[in-house]
Amino acid sequence: MFEIKIDDAKYWKSIINSIVALIDEGSLNITKEGISLKAMDPSGISMISFFMPNKAFSKYTIDKNASVGLNLDNLSKVLSSSRNGEQLVMKESSGRFDMEFTTQNSKRRYKLPIIDVGKEPEKEPKIDFESFVEVKSDSFKEILKDATLLSSYIGFKTDKSTFVVLAKGDAGELEEEHLDSADMIKKIDVSKATSATFNLEYLERIVGGCPLDSSITLHMKNDEPLKIDYKIGEASLIYYLAPYIEG
Amino acid sequence: MFEIKIDDAKYWKSIINSIVALIDEGSLNITKEGISLKAMDPSGISMISFFMPNKAFSKYTIDKNASVGLNLDNLSKVLSSSRNGEQLVMKESSGRFDMEFTTQNSKRRYKLPIIDVGKEPEKEPKIDFESFVEVKSDSFKEILKDATLLSSYIGFKTDKSTFVVLAKGDAGELEEEHLDSADMIKKIDVSKATSATFNLEYLERIVGGCPLDSSITLHMKNDEPLKIDYKIGEASLIYYLAPYIEG
Amino acid sequence: MFEIKIDDAKYWKSIINSIVALIDEGSLNITKEGISLKAMDPSGISMISFFMPNKAFSKYTIDKNASVGLNLDNLSKVLSSSRNGEQLVMKESSGRFDMEFTTQNSKRRYKLPIIDVGKEPEKEPKIDFESFVEVKSDSFKEILKDATLLSSYIGFKTDKSTFVVLAKGDAGELEEEHLDSADMIKKIDVSKATSATFNLEYLERIVGGCPLDSSITLHMKNDEPLKIDYKIGEASLIYYLAPYIEG
Repeated sequence: MFEIKIDDAKYWKSIINSIVALIDEGSLNITKEGISLKAMDPSGISMISFFMPNKAFSKYTIDKNASVGLNLDNLSKVLSSSRNGEQLVMKESSGRFDMEFTTQNSKRRYKLPIIDVGKEPEKEPKIDFESFVEVKSDSFKEILKDATLLSSYIGFKTDKSTFVVLAKGDAGELEEEHLDSADMIKKIDVSKATSATFNLEYLERIVGGCPLDSSITLHMKNDEPLKIDYKIGEASLIYYLAPYIEG
Repeated sequence: MFEIKIDDAKYWKSIINSIVALIDEGSLNITKEGISLKAMDPSGISMISFFMPNKAFSKYTIDKNASVGLNLDNLSKVLSSSRNGEQLVMKESSGRFDMEFTTQNSKRRYKLPIIDVGKEPEKEPKIDFESFVEVKSDSFKEILKDATLLSSYIGFKTDKSTFVVLAKGDAGELEEEHLDSADMIKKIDVSKATSATFNLEYLERIVGGCPLDSSITLHMKNDEPLKIDYKIGEASLIYYLAPYIEG
Repeated sequence: MFEIKIDDAKYWKSIINSIVALIDEGSLNITKEGISLKAMDPSGISMISFFMPNKAFSKYTIDKNASVGLNLDNLSKVLSSSRNGEQLVMKESSGRFDMEFTTQNSKRRYKLPIIDVGKEPEKEPKIDFESFVEVKSDSFKEILKDATLLSSYIGFKTDKSTFVVLAKGDAGELEEEHLDSADMIKKIDVSKATSATFNLEYLERIVGGCPLDSSITLHMKNDEPLKIDYKIGEASLIYYLAPYIEG
């Protein structure tokens, strides 16, 4: 049994949107520390690891650990109904996931079926990354848009104090060079130069939910998945994306 | 022969949009009292009764009653061309419906064919309703949106001082409870508790044209059509919607 | 070899959009005087003639005349990536069209293939026009919208000091009369009354890129193409559109 309250239902909605961009179903793991979720996307080329600490909620009562399997598409739809100023209480009741949106004189209660998601939580890969680039969220989203003009893939290259973005297609070629002094670069830290190519659609889904005034960190190592992380308020979202190997 | 002038063409447009949401063709009945229209929608599950008094027009001249059959889709398209500050004069001329939009130095005249709509005006059903709920327009539209997340049907229940909204589908269940003290409720008057289910798409079309800062009144009785009415300025729009009976 | 710089990449984008509305491929002819392009649209019913003088660019260096064949769709896509405050340098490099967008600490370089467009530049038709109407751009666009409600064709009639617009379809008829005193008319000059009908879709594509606060001049003569011209800043855009002959 658990009862968890969040003062701003729209904030919780923005977090779930960042998860549902990659996966349709998943288990919220509710422990004393907070709520977490780990899952591979159905295609198996990306992974998400989400955590939100108990202190981010205005009420957080649990008697024992719970794993709540949900259709996240439906959860996201229901959350899209949240209005400004609404509070949200989530609890389990008669084997269903109960969401109660409240304002002073009205309440709106949704009950979602709890489903069997069937997989054990995945472990995050352990990688000794060699390049780190912290980029402004809005600029990174523009870079992805630039690249989609020409290709379905995007290359990232790091070298000392430079972050280079590449895309190539029938219509032409793109090369963007960003020095560490550029406005959009918060930090570059390269112990070994790296170069790899990634699926653009997945990258766009991964960063789509990141607030525009926030920043995104890329962790890279040759021949290893890209790690991307960002925060939405106190929630932390970590993604891994396999590199694209030209066939 | 008639000649009717309205100072704000866009206001007339908003009224016609509320009618065309349900029906494609209809007859404007033009009498000394004002303009009215009554029609069933093609599926037969809903009915509209519209009236706008002569005083709502800046000029209203008729020599005898007229019934002008129009393709309302086309009427609505033509009205969508109205610009801010334009006046509109409507008259019959050579067997066609003449619409003249005027500003100081330009005039734009549309002539629409008058068509044979073929049906006598319907009578409104006479029902002794037992529950009345007056709801803020914007809130009622949000309720409908909440329900469409889960279902194509919506249930309304009234009981003393409570208005309950229900929707149920594979994705989950919704239950909304609104006390008469709620902000969105202007008035609840229940002589006998009622409960019925309605088609959501029709409800959305019916209230779509109601101004957001206005209010909507629901009249209910078990096993009878729902009556919905609202005003757009001086125009009154009344709708009847048959209850949905689970098959 | 040429190197041409424009201080506001978005301005150049708006010009290219006015060209690409009619044609997919074309050659930028780069001479000491400026950049020009002439082309028929693929259907052969319209023609575009564009010119932008060298003084409109902040840097304009060429050693000899060049003709750069480009897929204008791709050029337009790449230009859609331009951000506020970005400068653009265009040059030829290793047989490709090089576009470099720069801000203080970042640069983004696109390379587009130079293609063989295959046709010699067309000559503009020589016509002694007999009617001239200069109309406000925003009003002219509204006129076109009014007409599309009813038809795929639009008629223009001039007579002394009047500009009349006609459209006719199954849904009804439109007639707009604009006196030379009307707000939207900047100038009417009719030496001989004219009357002709044109394809609405082409007209909408032709004027789509004209800034709303600008004006458009129509040049007419019976049985001859319509000439339409307008300016975007210092760039001049001239179009010819064949009249529609009812079959």
